[in-house]
Amino acid sequence: MFDGLFAAPAVVTATDERAWLSAMLAVEAGLARACAEAGLIPPAAAEAIGAACRPDLVPADTLWSQAVRHATPVVPLVAALREAVPAEHRSYVHYGATSQDILDTAMMLIAARAVAAIVADLVAAVDRLDALTAEYGDVPQLGRTLMRPAVPTTFGAVAGSWRSSLAAALHTLRRWQPALQLGGPVGDRASLHGQGDRVAATLARECGLADVPPWHTDRTRVVELGSALGTVAGALAKLAGDVILLSQAEIGELDEGSAGGSSAMPGKRNPARAVLVVACAHRVPALVATLFAGMPQELQRAAGRWQAEWPTVTDLLRLASGAAGHARAMLADLTVDVERMRRHA
Amino acid sequence: MFDGLFAAPAVVTATDERAWLSAMLAVEAGLARACAEAGLIPPAAAEAIGAACRPDLVPADTLWSQAVRHATPVVPLVAALREAVPAEHRSYVHYGATSQDILDTAMMLIAARAVAAIVADLVAAVDRLDALTAEYGDVPQLGRTLMRPAVPTTFGAVAGSWRSSLAAALHTLRRWQPALQLGGPVGDRASLHGQGDRVAATLARECGLADVPPWHTDRTRVVELGSALGTVAGALAKLAGDVILLSQAEIGELDEGSAGGSSAMPGKRNPARAVLVVACAHRVPALVATLFAGMPQELQRAAGRWQAEWPTVTDLLRLASGAAGHARAMLADLTVDVERMRRHA
Amino acid sequence: MFDGLFAAPAVVTATDERAWLSAMLAVEAGLARACAEAGLIPPAAAEAIGAACRPDLVPADTLWSQAVRHATPVVPLVAALREAVPAEHRSYVHYGATSQDILDTAMMLIAARAVAAIVADLVAAVDRLDALTAEYGDVPQLGRTLMRPAVPTTFGAVAGSWRSSLAAALHTLRRWQPALQLGGPVGDRASLHGQGDRVAATLARECGLADVPPWHTDRTRVVELGSALGTVAGALAKLAGDVILLSQAEIGELDEGSAGGSSAMPGKRNPARAVLVVACAHRVPALVATLFAGMPQELQRAAGRWQAEWPTVTDLLRLASGAAGHARAMLADLTVDVERMRRHA
Amino acid sequence: MFDGLFAAPAVVTATDERAWLSAMLAVEAGLARACAEAGLIPPAAAEAIGAACRPDLVPADTLWSQAVRHATPVVPLVAALREAVPAEHRSYVHYGATSQDILDTAMMLIAARAVAAIVADLVAAVDRLDALTAEYGDVPQLGRTLMRPAVPTTFGAVAGSWRSSLAAALHTLRRWQPALQLGGPVGDRASLHGQGDRVAATLARECGLADVPPWHTDRTRVVELGSALGTVAGALAKLAGDVILLSQAEIGELDEGSAGGSSAMPGKRNPARAVLVVACAHRVPALVATLFAGMPQELQRAAGRWQAEWPTVTDLLRLASGAAGHARAMLADLTVDVERMRRHA
Repeated sequence: MFDGLFAAPAVVTATDERAWLSAMLAVEAGLARACAEAGLIPPAAAEAIGAACRPDLVPADTLWSQAVRHATPVVPLVAALREAVPAEHRSYVHYGATSQDILDTAMMLIAARAVAAIVADLVAAVDRLDALTAEYGDVPQLGRTLMRPAVPTTFGAVAGSWRSSLAAALHTLRRWQPALQLGGPVGDRASLHGQGDRVAATLARECGLADVPPWHTDRTRVVELGSALGTVAGALAKLAGDVILLSQAEIGELDEGSAGGSSAMPGKRNPARAVLVVACAHRVPALVATLFAGMPQELQRAAGRWQAEWPTVTDLLRLASGAAGHARAMLADLTVDVERMRRHA
Repeated sequence: MFDGLFAAPAVVTATDERAWLSAMLAVEAGLARACAEAGLIPPAAAEAIGAACRPDLVPADTLWSQAVRHATPVVPLVAALREAVPAEHRSYVHYGATSQDILDTAMMLIAARAVAAIVADLVAAVDRLDALTAEYGDVPQLGRTLMRPAVPTTFGAVAGSWRSSLAAALHTLRRWQPALQLGGPVGDRASLHGQGDRVAATLARECGLADVPPWHTDRTRVVELGSALGTVAGALAKLAGDVILLSQAEIGELDEGSAGGSSAMPGKRNPARAVLVVACAHRVPALVATLFAGMPQELQRAAGRWQAEWPTVTDLLRLASGAAGHARAMLADLTVDVERMRRHA
Repeated sequence: MFDGLFAAPAVVTATDERAWLSAMLAVEAGLARACAEAGLIPPAAAEAIGAACRPDLVPADTLWSQAVRHATPVVPLVAALREAVPAEHRSYVHYGATSQDILDTAMMLIAARAVAAIVADLVAAVDRLDALTAEYGDVPQLGRTLMRPAVPTTFGAVAGSWRSSLAAALHTLRRWQPALQLGGPVGDRASLHGQGDRVAATLARECGLADVPPWHTDRTRVVELGSALGTVAGALAKLAGDVILLSQAEIGELDEGSAGGSSAMPGKRNPARAVLVVACAHRVPALVATLFAGMPQELQRAAGRWQAEWPTVTDLLRLASGAAGHARAMLADLTVDVERMRRHA
Repeated sequence: MFDGLFAAPAVVTATDERAWLSAMLAVEAGLARACAEAGLIPPAAAEAIGAACRPDLVPADTLWSQAVRHATPVVPLVAALREAVPAEHRSYVHYGATSQDILDTAMMLIAARAVAAIVADLVAAVDRLDALTAEYGDVPQLGRTLMRPAVPTTFGAVAGSWRSSLAAALHTLRRWQPALQLGGPVGDRASLHGQGDRVAATLARECGLADVPPWHTDRTRVVELGSALGTVAGALAKLAGDVILLSQAEIGELDEGSAGGSSAMPGKRNPARAVLVVACAHRVPALVATLFAGMPQELQRAAGRWQAEWPTVTDLLRLASGAAGHARAMLADLTVDVERMRRHA
């Protein structure tokens, strides 16, 4: 809803339903190739499966009405794949895998792409802070604690504090590692007849994901992503909040170069980009909590808490991308009123 | 994302971007009529504005790129409306109003429709619980506390407890009252030149909303909606969770008549509807918290926390509708194994 | 931790461990009397039990080490009560009840007292806003939207918006109704041999609580309390946040009469009370979410989510009392700089 | 509240008000010594200040009533310290520091001690899982997905999944690094006259904390602690939840050796320790969200969101310690019913 305001356009596309379906099909195709490579299924089957893995495989209506019946889109997806390949290859579709393998790996692919876009915006934001510091770092600025005048500091110290938060968040996000999920029905790879590790290695390499043991009900990786995005959003909201405070008319030390307008007051200038950063970031902490609250997943596959991750991770990626994109734009045309800064200090 | 799984189809439609735009335009049109009725603008202007309020008024691309610049879709919407009416009526577009009037009232219209759909599903669920109780209420059933056998009770007592929670949630949701927002730039109706209360009364009547004083930064109504939906989701998750527990193979006292299947294990039966109820409900508490955390809205209009409400309320309406719809379906074909119940009691 | 800062002193006392134990013992004593009144146990037993219900009944060390073993303090409390009464009355202790009856009813008693204290502070705050409005309501004040100058309004409109939020929150909190819990082992009152409703009526009357059917796993009442306290905290945080913004040195339209100081800067004035209101309120939304997330309580008694309510409700009562108490104090000595207000408008 | 149930006793003591005051005084004393070492204050002053830093320095009543006035306990603490040292040393008390330096560093000291205790319990839990796996790893066990029978796996695979989550959480918690805070009034160390880095190095070494640049409004370190504790709690809740499910009477594959009892039903066995793990962990995700939501701290010192961290971090440390301690105890006497496991597989 209102994705145009609360997400970077590229990340909307990279995380929409079509992207998820493509990712799931890519995993099915890759799995077939990896199983063929390991000698578990015939190469011809892998080829046929790969050819059938096209986004228009299942009509949306069918897909979702069936997905509801089974609480997962993988059941109708696999059924359609089986329909789409020659009869002799049917039993090789989705070989040794379970819904969670497909969905978790797809989620990792989706996340990897969205994270890359967020990282790019964060790098640009940090660079711009460096440029602002190079230009205005020595300008004295009044420090304000508990929102009241304290003692003078410099704009360089202020921007440096923003930068250190952003850089820390960027570091955390970059360190996060998307990984393959492949465990079979109960997460122990027994369904891959001793070839599980080999299949996993091949599939991970093809997907560009880390090759790790199955982690069906160990959601550490997911909350780590959530925490990293939460740190990004928090650091950006701190920066945007300060810009809003320092660009109040009564302070006027900063301003968004292309401030927004009002539907009611013609000449009004609003810190529109900063407001959008705050709006995106405001929604993030609760979503992070939703992921943490989802960690206690029952036995070999959760009855609800796992399924709740798909849209939550999607929302987090989008909101972090919105916050990062708006912050980048806000910084790009941020103006510093050196005179007022000096006068107040 | 995956709306097909986590929302009732009717509520997806009732809360999507197109529905929001239609609602905003309905408010602009209604406002013009109400202003004409109060003698603030010429009737011809109201007519021209009403005629221009069509969903295809602004191309989506333009709308959202401009919305981002101003941190609100109302600025481009009003600009487009002004373009679309004859020059002499332009100044009467959006008369006396501010972005927040349009968006908050639209949100109330959206919420009212979605709530009606949720209420219908809850009523059906309560009715079904009544029918189950009429049929099986006297069947003895083992009570289980802290997940361990306690002493016998009856299925009627169990279903009665589910019913009382659902009925309470239904009562709360029905009691919630969507209301008009109309305050003008700083929320005091001064922009309506003494006719504010009259305009509000007319507009509220036309929209089917309560006629109340402006509430720009008093978000009580919004958190009340959130709390009501949170109560609905919580009551449904309790019910679904119990169904999952009681339909474990080792207990087997209940079962979803059309249980879901698995992508990996042909004969497997999964409590798919109950799982989807839990998945929807799991995401709700954090979103409720997001609304509560948004209450401290700065001065006359918030710089971020208000904007964050639009998608949050949308998500809450959708998730509650998903939980209610799936619960209704789950109950509709729930089967009771009287023999096992008696044996365990 | 730091209760002195984040709770009203009276509410700390009314919600501490001693208060909880006293409340639990009061319930046990009242239950015995009500059972005697209903003819279920001998009057002499009720008398002996009542006499034994003294706060020093169990040494704290014993109580908590045993409470840990059983995941409830009621088991050791009841054991100690049985020890403390003559042998012939032992079997009448805790008659027909279960841990949850005692703890939930105690929680309601605790909540009722704390709520009364919060209500008193809110009433005083509303009164003070009325007085401020009477004195300064006509003073023109600049309206500020998205933290930027909009058009003039009046201080009366600003204070009126604060007041309407507080009054709404107060109304919700007052409407909340603490209620008796009495259901027996599996929540159906079967353990009270047909006298359950009579015992409940007597006990409810004695405790000053509403006489309602058992609600063991229907936590509506608890989330309603949480939502009411969340609304209180949110309304107070809005007010305090505005005071902080309007008392920035660069705006200076309001000030806390007895502003706080700094450990580092001798002449500094800090909006200390407002800061504490914000600090208390900031912690509330997440705790409300914890209660909502706790609604899906398993079967006849939850395995963890119920137990998590005790400290969560305690924290919410304390934080709301802290926010209300600090807001009352902040308003009591709030000063209005009429000259600056006029000048900015 | 009910700390005996929801925290490890050692961590209650390590995080209580007295521990916080001691930690703050230790920082003041250490700061004086470090300033003397750097030649900023006379050695005699450092000695006098160190001698005055005793826990009973300020009566609790005075401390908290003054703390409320200033929204920080550091103001009265410093005032009392100044009173307690000879007049000629007074100006050297709290030299170059600000409230936040003292409180943040104290929080790090508190956290470091509590984390060490949690780590110890986690290590013991992991060791016990290793022992269980060594003994029962080969026992076949039914895998259950979406709470329904899937295909057989082994108890070793189940315990291995618990172990991998715990080990990951342990790794994250151990990697977290408590660090010195020293920035002076506006966080740039200007108040330490060019000796800030030297003072910081000395003080960090003495406190056993990492020597890092000031981080007043960069709360990355705090949310990292929160996320680490959230991961710990989530992993433990997964484990405890599975134990509860597998020890249902109808499954009976596991049992707590010293199960808890009931106040109402003499022979009942409850999975008391597991229930307490779940109860502790249930409260954690929302508190983590509170920390993330607190990241946008205004300008040089936050007006409320920083202050809200003190009790939130305390609660998180306690709850994680409670979950870890109870899980350790639960595992220590967990019994495996090999016969039932085999029969179900």
